[in-house]
Amino acid sequence: MKFRGKEKIVWSLNNYLGLANHPEIREVDAKAAQEFGMGYPMGARMMSGNSNYHEQLERELSEFEKKEDTVLVNFGYQGIMSAIDSLCGRHDIIVYDAESHACIIDGLRLHPGHRYVYKHNDVADCEKQLKRATERIKENGNNGGILVITEGVFGMGGDQGKLKEIVALKKDYEFRLLVDDAHGFGTMGETGAGTGEAQGVQDEIDLYFSTFAKSMASIGAFISGDKGIINYLRYNMRSQIFAKSLPMPLVLGNLKRLEMLRNRPELKAKLWENVGKIQQGLRDRGFDIGHTDSPVTPIYLKGDIPEATAMCLDLRENYNIFCSIVVYPVIPKGQIIYRIIPTATHTDQDIEETLNAFSETKKKLDAKAYQVAEIPMV
Amino acid sequence: MKFRGKEKIVWSLNNYLGLANHPEIREVDAKAAQEFGMGYPMGARMMSGNSNYHEQLERELSEFEKKEDTVLVNFGYQGIMSAIDSLCGRHDIIVYDAESHACIIDGLRLHPGHRYVYKHNDVADCEKQLKRATERIKENGNNGGILVITEGVFGMGGDQGKLKEIVALKKDYEFRLLVDDAHGFGTMGETGAGTGEAQGVQDEIDLYFSTFAKSMASIGAFISGDKGIINYLRYNMRSQIFAKSLPMPLVLGNLKRLEMLRNRPELKAKLWENVGKIQQGLRDRGFDIGHTDSPVTPIYLKGDIPEATAMCLDLRENYNIFCSIVVYPVIPKGQIIYRIIPTATHTDQDIEETLNAFSETKKKLDAKAYQVAEIPMV
Repeated sequence: MKFRGKEKIVWSLNNYLGLANHPEIREVDAKAAQEFGMGYPMGARMMSGNSNYHEQLERELSEFEKKEDTVLVNFGYQGIMSAIDSLCGRHDIIVYDAESHACIIDGLRLHPGHRYVYKHNDVADCEKQLKRATERIKENGNNGGILVITEGVFGMGGDQGKLKEIVALKKDYEFRLLVDDAHGFGTMGETGAGTGEAQGVQDEIDLYFSTFAKSMASIGAFISGDKGIINYLRYNMRSQIFAKSLPMPLVLGNLKRLEMLRNRPELKAKLWENVGKIQQGLRDRGFDIGHTDSPVTPIYLKGDIPEATAMCLDLRENYNIFCSIVVYPVIPKGQIIYRIIPTATHTDQDIEETLNAFSETKKKLDAKAYQVAEIPMV
Repeated sequence: MKFRGKEKIVWSLNNYLGLANHPEIREVDAKAAQEFGMGYPMGARMMSGNSNYHEQLERELSEFEKKEDTVLVNFGYQGIMSAIDSLCGRHDIIVYDAESHACIIDGLRLHPGHRYVYKHNDVADCEKQLKRATERIKENGNNGGILVITEGVFGMGGDQGKLKEIVALKKDYEFRLLVDDAHGFGTMGETGAGTGEAQGVQDEIDLYFSTFAKSMASIGAFISGDKGIINYLRYNMRSQIFAKSLPMPLVLGNLKRLEMLRNRPELKAKLWENVGKIQQGLRDRGFDIGHTDSPVTPIYLKGDIPEATAMCLDLRENYNIFCSIVVYPVIPKGQIIYRIIPTATHTDQDIEETLNAFSETKKKLDAKAYQVAEIPMV
């Protein structure tokens, strides 16, 4: 990335497989824009916004995800909001992980019925909430169902959702499971089909959601599942009925990206090679990277906001490393998280330089050097 | 448009100025996709999703709309939802038009405070609700404000929102006004700045919102207003903080589109010439087109849903005319609305053929021919 004219090593892009800048992708994107412009199709999917390519992408995603059917959405954030909104009526109860992404929370905010949150990845608490939900539905004359929502890979901590354990609860409780696998799609599982595949429970996920914004380096999203539910979603998601469908260059571009996900296992292999190198390197140097079991790599540090800012700036200006930090109020005061996203395009030299820079800046942080630091400016 | 391989005259695309397929637009779209691909920038605006071009588009929109500042959003639907969500806290009251678009209604659904609806374009009722809201806020110790939301041009009936009359209420009531001018941006007012300009009250609109999906034939949207409010929105809209920013080809493509809005008045002139021809032609033939005072042209007919479907199919298959119909449950049973969107690219022959086709099919409808019709198939 160029930042104010200077090349930086970037660790903030969810460009896991390096497709954003891949020459074959760039060629397809350019050709599609040439053929259709960015305007087509000029309408909502249900009206004048459908094309054979939209339907082809849906079929290919269903095949890839081993699901009966798939519906595309024009943007992931509003897509999952409207999916949750249209799936759940006021007698239905949603049970969800406390660390769910903002788009899920906004979807829940549209829900007129009850919602029970469980502690992040705490399966015992999830069961407790399922029990509560089941009892309430019984009291209500079995009028209503339960939707459990979690993520495949949590985008902050990098820990996988406990899909296998949650799915096991289906033995004792009646519910459907919606998994947002934004960070797992294309990166997890043998074929890249995601965290459900990685944990061997893809069949038990009732609704599999992913954005195209991460490993596919694009825009838009999709939901896969049983024919009946997907067809219902197709005609009931408000943000899809009342807004334009995915533009053609994104549809054609996503078809190409999906083909590369399927046919270039070397991209995912390279991603994981880099994940191994940076995570092991950080651990070897004594960094706390928490409980990640995915490419998402958090680095937990201690310091206040001015220190975090100064350190971030030091890294960017003096080490040419661009990465995002998370501070209060997203996490408790006094904590700093560096969120590192390795990709297939990082080189060994990028990784080495970054590890050295982290070691040096951590030393400064520990020595309180950033407390009095003049913030270094360009 | 080609529908199943056959050319159709289309009246369903909000491609008002004909930019979707304009050769200069197509060239810029193709070049931008070539230069950046569809992936860039790979991040939320606040993180790694900003560029000089994003900022340039914001500046140019501010200038065009005669507002201090502008913030881009990655998709109109979720953008306005998050704007409403972030602007209004639980002590604030929203007063809104009953026929507001689905995205506004979904934004209201996120609002934890009170909302008072007024009858569509009924200024007396709007005042009544403003009075109620003002009283409630007084009772609450003046803790909270009022946001009035309406549209510039209503997308179904084509009637303009009564902005001038609503703005006049500012004399007696304290509120801010948010106008969704999706259909007015680029089509209304002397310079195309929208319905606020057309009614001479652009300065009194506190927040001017429009999508790029209609006259700009693109994707994304923007909100213009005073610096302080826009800057607040920039850092507080959840769908913008937690999702990718507008891709570069859309930003560059929208810069070009805006340039054409400003510098090619002949496009808007041609649009209005066609609006005049089709609306006058319909009136001359005895059609009821309601109270439109914009390009949006509804045709009100009477008939049940099977009749509407048969008529629509007859038009498409036997007259090569593709247009959308609106039936129950969107409008009362027994009513049919044909929604016609004239554009700068329709020819006199298109208009003539369409008027004739409407006359002939209306005759069939009145003669109950569609009640027994075998639906004609391709």
